[in-house]
Amino acid sequence: MIVRPHQHWFTRLFAWHGSVMSKIYSRLLLNLLLSLVLLGVYSWYESLHVKITLAPFSLLGIAIAIFLGFRNSASWARYCEARQLWGSLLINCRSLMREVITLFPGDTHYPQSLKNDLLAFCYCLNYQLRHKPVEEVLQRFVEPPVATLVNAQQTPCNRLLLIMGERVAEARRAGKISDILYQNLNAHLNQLSGILGGCERIANTPVPFAYSLILHRTVYAFCTLLPFALINQIHVFTPLVSVFISYTFISLDTLAEELEEPFGTEANDLALDAICNTIEIELCQMTGDSNCPEKMHPDKQHRLT
Amino acid sequence: MIVRPHQHWFTRLFAWHGSVMSKIYSRLLLNLLLSLVLLGVYSWYESLHVKITLAPFSLLGIAIAIFLGFRNSASWARYCEARQLWGSLLINCRSLMREVITLFPGDTHYPQSLKNDLLAFCYCLNYQLRHKPVEEVLQRFVEPPVATLVNAQQTPCNRLLLIMGERVAEARRAGKISDILYQNLNAHLNQLSGILGGCERIANTPVPFAYSLILHRTVYAFCTLLPFALINQIHVFTPLVSVFISYTFISLDTLAEELEEPFGTEANDLALDAICNTIEIELCQMTGDSNCPEKMHPDKQHRLT
Amino acid sequence: MIVRPHQHWFTRLFAWHGSVMSKIYSRLLLNLLLSLVLLGVYSWYESLHVKITLAPFSLLGIAIAIFLGFRNSASWARYCEARQLWGSLLINCRSLMREVITLFPGDTHYPQSLKNDLLAFCYCLNYQLRHKPVEEVLQRFVEPPVATLVNAQQTPCNRLLLIMGERVAEARRAGKISDILYQNLNAHLNQLSGILGGCERIANTPVPFAYSLILHRTVYAFCTLLPFALINQIHVFTPLVSVFISYTFISLDTLAEELEEPFGTEANDLALDAICNTIEIELCQMTGDSNCPEKMHPDKQHRLT
Amino acid sequence: MIVRPHQHWFTRLFAWHGSVMSKIYSRLLLNLLLSLVLLGVYSWYESLHVKITLAPFSLLGIAIAIFLGFRNSASWARYCEARQLWGSLLINCRSLMREVITLFPGDTHYPQSLKNDLLAFCYCLNYQLRHKPVEEVLQRFVEPPVATLVNAQQTPCNRLLLIMGERVAEARRAGKISDILYQNLNAHLNQLSGILGGCERIANTPVPFAYSLILHRTVYAFCTLLPFALINQIHVFTPLVSVFISYTFISLDTLAEELEEPFGTEANDLALDAICNTIEIELCQMTGDSNCPEKMHPDKQHRLT
Amino acid sequence: MIVRPHQHWFTRLFAWHGSVMSKIYSRLLLNLLLSLVLLGVYSWYESLHVKITLAPFSLLGIAIAIFLGFRNSASWARYCEARQLWGSLLINCRSLMREVITLFPGDTHYPQSLKNDLLAFCYCLNYQLRHKPVEEVLQRFVEPPVATLVNAQQTPCNRLLLIMGERVAEARRAGKISDILYQNLNAHLNQLSGILGGCERIANTPVPFAYSLILHRTVYAFCTLLPFALINQIHVFTPLVSVFISYTFISLDTLAEELEEPFGTEANDLALDAICNTIEIELCQMTGDSNCPEKMHPDKQHRLT
Repeated sequence: MIVRPHQHWFTRLFAWHGSVMSKIYSRLLLNLLLSLVLLGVYSWYESLHVKITLAPFSLLGIAIAIFLGFRNSASWARYCEARQLWGSLLINCRSLMREVITLFPGDTHYPQSLKNDLLAFCYCLNYQLRHKPVEEVLQRFVEPPVATLVNAQQTPCNRLLLIMGERVAEARRAGKISDILYQNLNAHLNQLSGILGGCERIANTPVPFAYSLILHRTVYAFCTLLPFALINQIHVFTPLVSVFISYTFISLDTLAEELEEPFGTEANDLALDAICNTIEIELCQMTGDSNCPEKMHPDKQHRLT
Repeated sequence: MIVRPHQHWFTRLFAWHGSVMSKIYSRLLLNLLLSLVLLGVYSWYESLHVKITLAPFSLLGIAIAIFLGFRNSASWARYCEARQLWGSLLINCRSLMREVITLFPGDTHYPQSLKNDLLAFCYCLNYQLRHKPVEEVLQRFVEPPVATLVNAQQTPCNRLLLIMGERVAEARRAGKISDILYQNLNAHLNQLSGILGGCERIANTPVPFAYSLILHRTVYAFCTLLPFALINQIHVFTPLVSVFISYTFISLDTLAEELEEPFGTEANDLALDAICNTIEIELCQMTGDSNCPEKMHPDKQHRLT
Repeated sequence: MIVRPHQHWFTRLFAWHGSVMSKIYSRLLLNLLLSLVLLGVYSWYESLHVKITLAPFSLLGIAIAIFLGFRNSASWARYCEARQLWGSLLINCRSLMREVITLFPGDTHYPQSLKNDLLAFCYCLNYQLRHKPVEEVLQRFVEPPVATLVNAQQTPCNRLLLIMGERVAEARRAGKISDILYQNLNAHLNQLSGILGGCERIANTPVPFAYSLILHRTVYAFCTLLPFALINQIHVFTPLVSVFISYTFISLDTLAEELEEPFGTEANDLALDAICNTIEIELCQMTGDSNCPEKMHPDKQHRLT
Repeated sequence: MIVRPHQHWFTRLFAWHGSVMSKIYSRLLLNLLLSLVLLGVYSWYESLHVKITLAPFSLLGIAIAIFLGFRNSASWARYCEARQLWGSLLINCRSLMREVITLFPGDTHYPQSLKNDLLAFCYCLNYQLRHKPVEEVLQRFVEPPVATLVNAQQTPCNRLLLIMGERVAEARRAGKISDILYQNLNAHLNQLSGILGGCERIANTPVPFAYSLILHRTVYAFCTLLPFALINQIHVFTPLVSVFISYTFISLDTLAEELEEPFGTEANDLALDAICNTIEIELCQMTGDSNCPEKMHPDKQHRLT
Repeated sequence: MIVRPHQHWFTRLFAWHGSVMSKIYSRLLLNLLLSLVLLGVYSWYESLHVKITLAPFSLLGIAIAIFLGFRNSASWARYCEARQLWGSLLINCRSLMREVITLFPGDTHYPQSLKNDLLAFCYCLNYQLRHKPVEEVLQRFVEPPVATLVNAQQTPCNRLLLIMGERVAEARRAGKISDILYQNLNAHLNQLSGILGGCERIANTPVPFAYSLILHRTVYAFCTLLPFALINQIHVFTPLVSVFISYTFISLDTLAEELEEPFGTEANDLALDAICNTIEIELCQMTGDSNCPEKMHPDKQHRLT
């Protein structure tokens, strides 16, 4: 995620936006080259009496803009839902921790164990969504044999929920909490289960391949044909205007592609590491631990991962 | 569902997207033929002094794009809701199982029976939505007489819920669980009932026939008339541009048609079999069974059913 | 509701879609006539040197398409919400019935009475929304004096909820169910109350009259002026293109009008009778009755009411 | 709110829609005058060789239509949410009343008191939202000293909730209802609190002033400049087409303005009085009172307030 | 937030809208200057035979309008969600206070302490979101040592929730409230936790930088190139029309930028201070305190902060 300080509107016009720019750089260059070549051979091109006008491109351009707008909405909705799920992960960790701390006032062991389980769950979900091996991070928070068991599952996070569920049920059996309080704590586990399922859904169900393919293809075909239609109308301005229009369409296509997989590590993806770090500090301060981790800050390129 | 590995933007332009392409192939060919014929008889066509311009088509094209954008949103919303319902099926199966396992720590029979009921429910819902006979799949998970009884109902899945409800109520009557815990378990059954009803709603309520018909017709009429208007403007480019514009409109019309019935087995439909498989492995690992099924993987065309 | 079997894309182009077509038939004919008359007197019209061009119509056409797209979304949202409410009616009837059957295992009378109350509620809501007299349908499910009492109310359905509430409270007073179980059953009654209120809201709050009026008027004025602008540009094609554009705009205006009142009995309205029939069979099979009603099927025009 | 009987599409074209028309009447007239003046001095205007074409207006017109479409959606969403809040007010009053009546079967005093509190709450919310003095309406339902106390608060409705909360807590303290039942009744009060807060939010947070101002201004500037661009293209048709386009844009701007404050008393605002009347009859019939008020009907202009 | 009295449509056209205008003033001036310079050197410019037409700008303008419409929707959704969260903060404070007051009828100390905690939470959230130091405001409502402890946390608001949770758990341990009532009160704390997390999410997750950058840049490039294309078509009207079109695009870009950070103190941001003030008066009147603060009113520029 890019976290950039506020800039003056003028400075901002020339801000170098690494992520998308570096991706579409080569594509715009291709477009520019095509325009320049066309401009070079214009007198020959003109002699062909090719009657290609801008009108059909205008129609098509607007149609593409409408479809691209729709695709942007769909990608943006996925991004927002993913962020919301991770937001409610933070909320649930805090609330569950608050209830456990206040319900077991003398007990320090119980909140600590649950804190570790929760942190294991958060980091494990993070690593699972980013296809990183989870065993190491599990070792940080749970006993080695448990970590091995959890790691052997199809969904390690779900096994962690089972372990937390067992912990809560044990307290009920031991008479420490009534059925009503069990209901309360269990409700948070159900919400964690919902968060896990929601994240898996977003990660495993891409926007239908045909959608992105049709648009991707149409955008590129459009940008490639554009100089042929522009050259009759605006001659030497063709390279400028062609690259400008292509920039608008291709960058939005590229951004939609990036946003639709919000759990990646590209510049516009969610800062899962930073959220995990926040949760860790938060739970640490709630249980009153002394050695809490440092707060993560954006790097020099204003990026949080 | 198509699950495709990430591709370079250039390779991707030429990716063969079986599903939609194979469907609209013939339609685009017809369009191409029409353009070519028109080009062949152009001198005669010109002599008719037909004054058909692009302007009214431009107006109509944008209007169609707006309506098509609306229809795409409606189809996409159905697809997303369907996916969300199946996602919460997984979530509820996990949560219900977690609660049962932790509430009956010594008992292995009770969780096993509920696991079988849940799997019967999932597979039965899958088969019902895809209009496949459910009896066989029921036999896998429940006793033959129960399977026959369930199969005889209007909605077999609902009878399975009644059976699970009976199982939970029995535990309450036997004093194994209090009313509060009954409330917890029953809440999951209510959510399964909501999932069943939601899926039936999507399956039984098509997007109003008039919507798809009006658009389907308008798109085809538009694409058919297009070459007549283009030929005066761009002459030999007519086949190329006409097929290009038709591709954009017809493929989005076709895709919307495919997405609006998300429970089918076409390329862009939901991978219900894979979700059932995931649930089966998940519940199997939770109860600690030794012989869990294999994980399903996409076939060579990157398809999951 | 139209439930049509899947058709080949080509056959589908020529499908006769009774509902909308029969409504807009005369309006398109008027438009065709106007175009033909204009074509007949073209030489005289030309001599007037009327300088009416397509450009302002193009602008207006796109603006209308945007506003029509907005209105379609609003109507479609109403339709979907109405369908969702009736879907959750089915879900709640099933869930309430399941809980009652499993909580009163020996008792056959109690579930039967509640089943009749629920069916009376469903049919009564259906008839109320379609402005049909409810007394007769009440007689089918409840005692005549109760039917008379219920029928005398401003909202008969709400009185039925009060009767069901009384039945549930009675069981609590008699000690058959604890307060917790009362809470469970009562929650379903609250949801039925929400469904009732939601349906009334949709039925009693039309889309602001000004919206539909402004658009209705603008669409017709636009279609009437269109031939005057087209004739200079495309001459003999005017009738064809004018009717084509009018078809797109008028049919979408008409469909939005139909969808925005989803409880009517027009072709694109919800199949309330079929949903009531489904609920009746469902509850009947759950209580194990022998003489359940027949399943309703679409008529020859593929219509379900 | 306008509740109009269904009309034939043709009759409807000429329906006089008081509310919006009477507001924009003068503005359209100004536009017409401008066009006519311009037409009168056309030969002089032509001699100036002013090269103003429709192209930039076309671009701007479509941009305005897109932004206006967005603003319409925002206003419509506010209107729908406001209606939904008042719909759930009816739902909650019914449900709370049903529970109280069935839980205190012999007691007639308790339901009566709560009914009066609820009605005071509904009418008070209505009057507060419409900036009318609430004291008089409070006197109708509660004791004079209570009415005075309630009226002295920043939010009289919230004090009424406190009074109802006190009533429910009293019943719990007196042992008439268990904590579980208290939870049930209290949940309805929380929902009433949510309705109150939701209505206040809509009433106190206008659509950002800049939004409506930018659009308002742009629409008028656009309509004023339009005749200058049209006159070169369509000459004598300028007044007709200019007024027509202005009608479309200005009426939608005006309607959005009206819908975005749904609690007013303009023609397209919500019929709060009618909803209060419905709730009063409903609760009156539930408690079996004999002298219930008359049902409110639309006046001769089909208006409900 | 701007709270402006209703104005006549004509007066409103000339309303000075400080916030956005003062920001885009200089940018429009630059645009005007460019147009004027271009007009000055027109004869020379014409002699260059630069063939730049409006057609590609028309296409691009509509595409930008579509993308800008999308971005406006995204910003508006953030603004509305932020407002909704603060609305539900008010709702929850009222409801929690109502329950506490009615459950502890004799006790005045308990409601007072909770009131102070709640107010500390509200003001602290306000100050945290606006990056103002929270210690001073904490001192107003809680004991100095507590204030220091709270202030030392990563998220002071969350520590306040822990303190309130402790207070509620204490009442349960002391037998003043049953587990059911604890569940009720705790549910409100969970909602406060949700509000806190929701606000943090909006504050910490900007709209992807690439989105605003791509649009920002495209809008400015478009407005800068516009005069070059307009001058051939409308000559002396270029400055007027160019500034007009730029006003529409740039002001909407600027407004979207302002709305997407709803917790700031710019003119169109949320009036957090006023909401805190409302909550303070409300809770003060509920507990019957005599010295409640004054109600905040908009300043002379109709602004509430």
